[in-house]
Order: sequence, then structure tokens, then C-alpha cells
Amino acid sequence: MTTSAPRVNVQLVADALLGKWKAERLESRALASDERFHTIHGQPMDEHRIRALSQLQQLADAGAVQRAFPSSLGGNDNHGGNVAAFEELVLADPSMQIKAGVQWGLFGSAILHLGTEEHHKKWLPAVMDLSLPGAFAMTEIGHGSDVASVGTTATYDPEAEEFEIHTPFKGAWKEFLGNAALHGQAAVVFAQLITKGVNHGVHAFFVPIRTPGGEMMPGIGSEDDGVKGGLNGIDNGRLHFTHVRIPRENLLNRYGNVEADGTYSSPIESPGRRFFTMIGTLVQGRVSLDGSAVRAMQAALTIAIRYGNERRQFPGASGREIVLLDYGQHQRRLMPRLAQAYAMAFASERLLTVFDEVFSGAKDTDENREDLETLAAGLKPLSTWAALDTLQEAREACGGAGFMAKNRLTGLRADLDIYVTFEGDNNVLLQLVGKRLLTDYADQFKDGDKAAYARAAASQLGDRVSRFGLRQLGQSIADLGQMARSIESLRTSEAQRELLTDRVETMIAEIASALRDATKDVPKAERAQRGEDAFNAQQHKLIQAATAHVELLQWEALTEEVEKLTDAGTKQVMTWVRDLFGLGLLERNMTWFLVHGRISGQRAEALTAYVDRLISRVRDHAVDLVDAFGIPAELLRAEIATGIEAERQAEAHAYVEAQRAAGTWPIHEKELRAQAKAEAKAETKDAARR
Amino acid sequence: MTTSAPRVNVQLVADALLGKWKAERLESRALASDERFHTIHGQPMDEHRIRALSQLQQLADAGAVQRAFPSSLGGNDNHGGNVAAFEELVLADPSMQIKAGVQWGLFGSAILHLGTEEHHKKWLPAVMDLSLPGAFAMTEIGHGSDVASVGTTATYDPEAEEFEIHTPFKGAWKEFLGNAALHGQAAVVFAQLITKGVNHGVHAFFVPIRTPGGEMMPGIGSEDDGVKGGLNGIDNGRLHFTHVRIPRENLLNRYGNVEADGTYSSPIESPGRRFFTMIGTLVQGRVSLDGSAVRAMQAALTIAIRYGNERRQFPGASGREIVLLDYGQHQRRLMPRLAQAYAMAFASERLLTVFDEVFSGAKDTDENREDLETLAAGLKPLSTWAALDTLQEAREACGGAGFMAKNRLTGLRADLDIYVTFEGDNNVLLQLVGKRLLTDYADQFKDGDKAAYARAAASQLGDRVSRFGLRQLGQSIADLGQMARSIESLRTSEAQRELLTDRVETMIAEIASALRDATKDVPKAERAQRGEDAFNAQQHKLIQAATAHVELLQWEALTEEVEKLTDAGTKQVMTWVRDLFGLGLLERNMTWFLVHGRISGQRAEALTAYVDRLISRVRDHAVDLVDAFGIPAELLRAEIATGIEAERQAEAHAYVEAQRAAGTWPIHEKELRAQAKAEAKAETKDAARR
Repeated sequence: MTTSAPRVNVQLVADALLGKWKAERLESRALASDERFHTIHGQPMDEHRIRALSQLQQLADAGAVQRAFPSSLGGNDNHGGNVAAFEELVLADPSMQIKAGVQWGLFGSAILHLGTEEHHKKWLPAVMDLSLPGAFAMTEIGHGSDVASVGTTATYDPEAEEFEIHTPFKGAWKEFLGNAALHGQAAVVFAQLITKGVNHGVHAFFVPIRTPGGEMMPGIGSEDDGVKGGLNGIDNGRLHFTHVRIPRENLLNRYGNVEADGTYSSPIESPGRRFFTMIGTLVQGRVSLDGSAVRAMQAALTIAIRYGNERRQFPGASGREIVLLDYGQHQRRLMPRLAQAYAMAFASERLLTVFDEVFSGAKDTDENREDLETLAAGLKPLSTWAALDTLQEAREACGGAGFMAKNRLTGLRADLDIYVTFEGDNNVLLQLVGKRLLTDYADQFKDGDKAAYARAAASQLGDRVSRFGLRQLGQSIADLGQMARSIESLRTSEAQRELLTDRVETMIAEIASALRDATKDVPKAERAQRGEDAFNAQQHKLIQAATAHVELLQWEALTEEVEKLTDAGTKQVMTWVRDLFGLGLLERNMTWFLVHGRISGQRAEALTAYVDRLISRVRDHAVDLVDAFGIPAELLRAEIATGIEAERQAEAHAYVEAQRAAGTWPIHEKELRAQAKAEAKAETKDAARR
Repeated sequence: MTTSAPRVNVQLVADALLGKWKAERLESRALASDERFHTIHGQPMDEHRIRALSQLQQLADAGAVQRAFPSSLGGNDNHGGNVAAFEELVLADPSMQIKAGVQWGLFGSAILHLGTEEHHKKWLPAVMDLSLPGAFAMTEIGHGSDVASVGTTATYDPEAEEFEIHTPFKGAWKEFLGNAALHGQAAVVFAQLITKGVNHGVHAFFVPIRTPGGEMMPGIGSEDDGVKGGLNGIDNGRLHFTHVRIPRENLLNRYGNVEADGTYSSPIESPGRRFFTMIGTLVQGRVSLDGSAVRAMQAALTIAIRYGNERRQFPGASGREIVLLDYGQHQRRLMPRLAQAYAMAFASERLLTVFDEVFSGAKDTDENREDLETLAAGLKPLSTWAALDTLQEAREACGGAGFMAKNRLTGLRADLDIYVTFEGDNNVLLQLVGKRLLTDYADQFKDGDKAAYARAAASQLGDRVSRFGLRQLGQSIADLGQMARSIESLRTSEAQRELLTDRVETMIAEIASALRDATKDVPKAERAQRGEDAFNAQQHKLIQAATAHVELLQWEALTEEVEKLTDAGTKQVMTWVRDLFGLGLLERNMTWFLVHGRISGQRAEALTAYVDRLISRVRDHAVDLVDAFGIPAELLRAEIATGIEAERQAEAHAYVEAQRAAGTWPIHEKELRAQAKAEAKAETKDAARR
């Protein structure tokens, strides 16, 4: 770097990352920095479970987990700040974090959002102070992603004014529930509400399951899930119910009520919309997993980049061994992931903002709710996968040291593994996003006049259907092809935006057309099956399109933040980071751009060369860029990220230099042979001259 | 499937997979099926370490681990069979397997291959019966992949006729060594051999480190690595040496000897070649990790495919819920990995064959040794990465059930994680393969006459430099472009072979040219640095080229096996598997083929459509294809692979059917509303008619 090279103002970037809930984040980090909240590597499962429960009690006692609950009950009605603070707990111990998530984010939230005031008053105080630990009994072994089809029934008995909760077969056992094996005294149970012979769909019920002394309630069975791939501080287990009676009032009845005589009523007429509204109130889990995944990937990059910047391996032409991070391949492994972590962090902050707008009531519109669901369903899959991928690449980049528990990478990866399938399986969530995009696309043609739409679109270049729905380009592809002729033009935000937007739009249009064609002129009786088959044939592509859409949203979030920066050096470096992310997306999906004639083969090669240049530029600022993640040493807790390798390198270097200076450094046989060869050559020359 | 559809003969395929060392494999599987060798999920580290040591004793007592040692000492001189049997242990408990690998594959092998007869007689019997547990002290915290630069010294003292083993600084501590923390009583220590003021490079020394009672020898320090990301049954640790004296005879002197007076001699003159020859004798580790990785991915696929073939989620048009493996995305996730597992299994068998040829002495030629090293350095990275990737995809495809320890996927993944960086970091190994390809490429031009070479090449279509070196095409690219005009033509082995071969050859030619250009007309003083920079700039591409080469070798292995099959149905299905693997490689690397004008955009799209068709064809045989892996239930030990989900599904289905038949199945509000709507419509019609 020359002296005129741009410098990152670490504090500016750190503040941008801390975002709107900076105070809550810093407060939570400070609390989580205390040793009593930290993972003990290798702690046996039973002890870890006891510790996690006691950690939860300490969190509750510290008032660290009540922010989202009503002020009237001792909370703060602060939904965004609550999730922000929660996300920071992941680096203390993910078991503690997720057990807290079960207690307050799922069990407590379900009572809050699906229950009514009586329920709040009756149960929330005990939920908040942990005197009532609970489970969230939604998933069944036979029904994971498809919650609407759960087998558990809640049949109303007007004589007794009770519901009977029942598990009719083994596939309907509630499964994988935190707090179910040991600590839960109640559960919010999702079951088919049946009254007067009619099934009104899945509703939530408050069911006491265990005495404070640990005895199961009559008719309720529990089994322990035992050891898992991670999160072993949580007592996951199964629950089943044999004709268990609960009072009518235990139905969490915000979205559906049963009168004493068994009459059902709901403020939402359509059973489908009612179900999705209920499920939608639980979006908080996805939002907080997204932010937690970002924090974990930031930790992974901090560890691998600091270590890679100190560790040396193989002697170079300069005589000294080369720093790992100066190797082209090492840079290729870490720099694009660093850029990605930035994009995901800013996208996550946007998601949290929409979440807060909806749940605080500040902007609780249908459109905003839909946006929130789309964004959560889109970001959570990509960030949780990226966390696993980044933790793994970091672990490998640190070699054997990366495999040691004390360097954190393997433990975090094991614990976060389940993030990609819980709170919505990632593939199922992306399919949801894809379906939303198909709907947005179809909405354009509601009036049936394609040409009119095209004219309208052309006049609204860059306009969007909604904040996070399908984007549309008002420009013809030919124009785009013209524009992106040179590599320079690909560096502009406009070109990146348009290429990324165009890809999503075109993919969705192609899928829509394939689906339409499949059922065209098909007899009615066969239409459903044909439609299903056609959708199935397009499923992989739809998930790819959804992914592309989410990447565009991440790119937008990063671009927006970069544009806000005013410090020139910081802005320059962050623009390279943005370009690396954006062009990296183009590079990774180049086959599509080539096949669709959007980028020429020549430009594709130039793009890869330019990505290489961006990677080496970003490498020079990599340590600053991970410093800006601002992870306190107490939360990072990785020996190799403390400068220990630089110390060892300095000691070894000093030792060799001292030996050399003292003349006690043994000559290597190789040098000896080279000298002998040179001498022999000189002698031969000499002899020839004589 | 119609009745005329091809069927896989499972036994035929199973036999092809068992290969040459069928007897050893089956024997090892039978032994490993015993419960005493199986992982206990969640067992605390200390107990697991004790158990692993006792398992090793039982393996030794059963005569299960001595096959590679000399017949004269009670072994069988059976190198291939030894590795084959070893590979099968991975599904019992990877900790036990790798601890056995440390004892017999590294510690024992080093004495066998680097020592001479006196050493064998003196130490091997105790190594073989485990009365002498040992460590393999090669890696240092400061030098992992770069073994030639280790800091530990072995300085010869002619007065005492002893070597002094010394750790000069912290970076030279031996690190991550199995058996070092607790059980090792000796170690083979790799150190710079210094005699008469000259450093003759790294040699191996036998160093007692601990009494049988567990006390450290004077001058030797040990620290425990503690908890790791996996393999916690192994007592990994650090060792350091402070002026430790060992007799001159403890130098393992097959490739370098020191006389009593300090005179050094070696049968290999070049210090570089000597070093690589010594290291080369330890290739067994890579070979056996490759085969073990294949076994783990086969287990993962068996579990995920059996479960995916039973589990149902979301109702379909038929009325019943859809089997997961019938979803397009689920097939996309698992079928290409199934094809890959086949290719890797057959490639692994080829590697083992060459290994056996070299080590049995049956075909111990320089060329065969070089081939062995290339193949091991190439296959081990791809298979160990594929194992992690497949285990993870399988774990996700099984949802929450995949996260339960009892279903094996997370435990195997955690244990196998380190396979990708030990016994040679995967990226470093692929770079080795890449360098070999560059050398093969340069060898073509040794006579300086490119045109002559091109003519020669043209006359030997499909010829190879060596069995596993750079392949060459004797055909112009233009011809190739002609040939692969249609999707049909891409289905032939010839087209697949040529496209895959062409890619490697062209990439290597491009890299070679870039490297040549970088130092052309550069002053001598700058040449080394410029060369280093240029290589660094090409490093990523070189690793990609090496990967492409290894994939071609895998493809060749699979194709060869498919061609051997005589049963028509089996051959048909296995040809689809081969095509899926081959065309999958083309699809994954399509950008390259498009940019280089080898495949047109239109053909690329047709190819993806055809891959989709292959996937759905292979899906129909997926259960047979995993049955052919032949993993006994005792080794698989995954609850979800036992048919338990099919039982649950049957029970649930029967329950619903019985309720329906009895008329006690409650009608859903949705149906009720639909009925009401239909009735209202009919009434309106009726009213209008009246």
C-alpha cells in the first residue's frame, strides 16, 4: 500500500454495522462477555443442560430477555431491540441462546401473539421470570415443514367445557422440542381444533405437561431425544398426549375462539389465511436466526483472517516464508466470503427494521407483513447456509488449529447446523419466496393486457412492485447488452443492479410460462396432477430464482449502506467490497448470463480477472474489515485470533537470525551441493582458460 | 416403472464395489459389526479415549491390523488388503479407526518404511501387538503442510554417538499428534538431521517419550490438545524436546545414514528427491482416508435415500402426501451425489490397486510411484470434501431427524471434518497434482518442436502420458465442436471423455503460457519474485485444473466399471449413473465450456434438461443403488434407515382410512366452505330457473 492508498475508518464501519439497535447490541455483548455464559468445551450433555437452564435464569434475572413483552408486564414493547440483543448471545453459547429462544421467542411469543389479554396476565409473568419453563410443541415426527397437516387433535367437549388433546398415532408425536425432555412445565401445543364435528385447522393450546417437581401430568408422555449434532445444552424431546383434558380457556384464541356451547368463530374468515396469519406471528424465530448466523460468520472470518495474516508457510523468493493471506488461493477462499458477510449483515438489519415496524405497530400494514415474511423466508436460508459454509472454510483455512475446540470454529458449526432446517427448512422457505415472486409476476398481467403492462413498465425504470417483492426492469435486454460491453461498465451499480434484476425477472417469467403451458388445454380431471408435475419439474429452478432474488436484496442493502458513507477512503474500500460481492454473484452464475446472451464470453473472462484484482485489493484491508465487526475478545475466545501465531513467528525468526549472525546456523546440504556445482563450473572454465 | 424397465442386479453391483479385496472387506465389516467397536454418542472425552485404546487392543488381539507388516514378524505383507480392511472401520467409530491409523499406519509404517531390518525386529512386534503405543511427530504448530521446513533439530554428537533432539522455539513444538497426550510411549520424530555442521534435511528418529507407567522421559514435555471438533476418542497432544539424547541407531536410516564418526550418506543423492521419497512412503494415509471418505458418503446416501423414500410431506393431487424423494429438488440434492459416490468408489479401488502394486513390489516402478502419488494427492481431496458435503446434504435432507446423533450423520461429519486438512491439506495436495500436470505438459515440448509434438499427438488419439498424468487429445477443438452438436452426442462416452479431457489440457496450457510470459525478458535478479507472483496469480486456476483432472480420472474409473458389466438392466442403469456424473461435471463447469466455445448456449440448456431426465431415471433405482453399497445394519446404525418411517406412515394412513370408513373423520372447515359455496351457486341457479 502506498501512503495515498485509501484507509478504512474502522469505527465508521463498525457503527454502520451496529445499526439502529446499537445500544441493545452493546449492552447484550457486555452481558454475554461474562464467563458464566460461555460454552465449556466438551462438557457432558447432562451437565450442559443444567448449566444452560441456570444461564437462562441469570439472563432472566438480569432483565436481558424481556424487551419484547408488554410494558404493562415489565417488558419494553421493544421488538427490534429484543431480537438485536438476542442475536448477540450466539457467541456466548448457542445452546443458551436457542434455549432462551425456545422459552421467550417461541413459547412466550406464542402466548403473546396467539393469546389474548387474560392469557398474558395469567402466564407471561411466570414465562418472563422463568418460573414457568415451557416447550413449543408444533413439529411432529410425521410433519415438519407441513404444519397444517399435523395429526394431534384438540376436540372440544361442550359437556365438560374442555378440549381433549390427543395423539392418534406415532407419526403425530411432537418431536425435537426444546424443554420437552426435562425442564418444561407447560407447552404451547399446535393441534387440529375440532368442534361440532368440524375441523377448523391448526390452533395453539396451552397445556401443562409437568409439575414443578418434574412429574409428568396424567396422559402425557415424554421421551428424551438424547445426544444431537450440536446444541447439547438443550433438553430436546418428544411429547405425546393420551386424551388429555384442558379447560376451554386454554385455547390461545386471538385468531379463533370456541364458545362454551362449541360454536367456533374467527376474525379471519378464510381458514387458509387464518393459518398463515397465526404462523406469521412467529416470524421472529427466522429473523433472529438470520442475525445470529451473520454474527457467527463474522466471528469465523475474524478468526481465519487474523490467523491467515500471521501464519507463514513455504519459503518465498524474498527468503522469508509467505503469509497465508498473501496466497492467491487463500484470498479466493476468504475475501468473497468477507464481502458476502457484509452484504448479509446489512440485509439482516433491513429485515430487523421491517420486523420492528410491523410488530411495534408503527407500520403494521398487509404489504409490510408480506414483505417481512418474504424477506425473513429469503434471508434466513442464505445466511444460515453461508454461516455453515464460512465456518467450515475458516476451519479449513486454519488447518489443524481450526479443528481445536478452543478456536471455536467447529463448535459453532456443530451448533448452527440445525439453523438451516429449523424455523422453516431452507429449501421450503426459498420455495415460499419463489411462489411470492410468481404471484408478483402474475399480478402484472391481471388486466390481461401484456402490451399495456410492458409500456407501463418501460416508463417506471427501476420501480418495484413492493419493497422486497419481484423487481422489474423497464428496459429491454438488448439495451442492457449494449451497456455492459466493457468491464468498466460492469463496475457501476446500475449495471450490477440491472443484470441481477434481469436474471430474477427472466427466470420467473420462464418458470411462469412453463407452468402455464403445462396445464393449457388439459382436461379438468388431469389438471391438478399435471400442474403438480409441472411445478415439481420447475422446483429446482424456482429455488434458484428465489436465491437470485434474495442475493439481489442483499446486494441492494450493501449498496445502500455504501452510498451513505461520506469518508472517502472508507467509501472506496467498501465500494470494492460491494463490487466483489456483486461481480462475485455474476461470476458464480455466469452460465446463466452467457446462455441468455447477457454477457459475452470475452467479458466473462475479463470479469474473472477483475474479481481477482478486487480480491487482492480487499485483502489489504481485510484485517480492518474484520476489526469493524467489533467482536469483543471475550465473545470471540479463539486462541489463534489473539496474535499468538505472530509471536511464535517472531520468536522463530529472531532465533534463526541470531544463529546466522553468530555463524552457528548449519549450512543445508542443498546449498553445499549448489556451491560445489558452482565451483566445479568455475574450475572447468578456469581449466579451459589455462 | 413398466415391467420392461431395466432392473439393477444389486449383488452384481455390490461385488463390483467390493473389488479385489472383497474377502478382507467382508472380514473387517463382520468384525466391526460387533457392538464393542461402536461409538457411544455423547461419551465424555476422557472415557472415549480409554475406550478407543481398549478397542485398539481388541483389534490387535483379533489380528485385524497387522496385514501390512512383514510375514516374518507375524504380518501378511498384504498392503492393499490392509488398507481395504482399515477403510471399513470408519463406520464403527472414526476415533478408533484413526487412532489405529496413528498406531499402525503412521507410527508403525514409518518404522517399517523408513527404518531397516534391525529396527523392524526391535520395535515392530511391540508396535503390532500394541505393547508399544506410539505417536507420529511430524507436524509442528509452525509448519503443517511445509514439512521440509520443520524447526526441530537432531544434531549428531560423534563423541557420545548420539543424536540430540531439540525444539529450538515454540513454533517447532510437535502438534496435533494422536497418542501424544496420554498413551504414546515412543514417537517417530521428524527433525532436521545435522551432522558435521551440515543440515541434511528432515529425517525420522525413534524417540522414547513416556514410560509404560505414563511418566514423561527427561527433557520431553507434553500438553493435551483437549477437546476437538471430532475424533475425541484420540488423545491428541503436543510434544517438545529439550536436548533429548537418543542413540545413533535410532535414526530410521533406510534413506539416510550417519556413521559413528558423523559421516552422512544416502542412497539418494539429491536432498530434494530424498525428502520426497521418504514422505512418499507415507502415502498410505491418503489412500486409506480416500476409501474411508467413500464409505462415509455411501452411508450418508443410504440413510438419506431410504428415509427420503419413506417420508411424506405436503398433500399432492392424488390425495396422499408426497414422498420426499419424488420432489424435484430432493432428487437434485441426492441423485448427483449418488452418481458421484459411485465414481469415487471405483476411483478409490483403482488407487488402492496402484498402491498395492507399488508396496507389494509387484510393480514398484518410478512411473507407478509417481502415478500413485498423483492419484492419492488428487483423489483424497475430492473424496474427503465430497464426504463432508454429502453427509451435510443428507443431514439436511433428513431434517431434524438428521441432526439426532442416533441417525449418525452429524457424528460422522464431525469426525471426518479433519480428513480434509490432515495427511496433506486438500488445497496443497491439489496444487501438487497441478504441478505434476504442468510438468507433464512441459515434457511434451522438451525437444522444442511444438509442431512435431502436435503431429505426434494427432496420431495417438486418446493416448496418455502415463496412467494418471495429463491426458491429451489428438483432435482439434473445431472437430470436437462439430461432434457435440446435439444432446444425443453428449451421451456417448467419447464425447464426455473428450470434453473433460480438453478442459484440463486447455487450462493447463493456458496456465503454462501465463507462467512463461510472466518471466520472459525479465532481468535475472527479479525473475524469482516475478515467477512467484505469477504462480500465485495462477494458483486458484491451477487448483481448478487439478480438480478437473481428478474428476476426469473418476469418470474414467466409473466408465471402465460400467463397460465391464454384462447384465443388460444393470448396465443400462449404471450407464445413466455414469452419464449423470459426466454430464453433471459438464453442467457444473458450463461457464468454462461456453466461454471457450466448446458447447453452445442452446446445447447447455438442453444438457440441463437432459440431466433432469437422468436424475428422475436414477431416482427410480436409488434404493437398489444404495443397497448395493452393502453396508450392514450394524455398521449403518441409523434409526431412520430401518423402515421406521414407513411403519409410522402406514399406521397414520390406516388410522385415517379407518376413521373415514367409520364416518368419524371430522370434515374440514375448508371443505365445508367449499360445499356451502357450491350449494349457494346451485341455489342461485335454481332460483334463476324458477
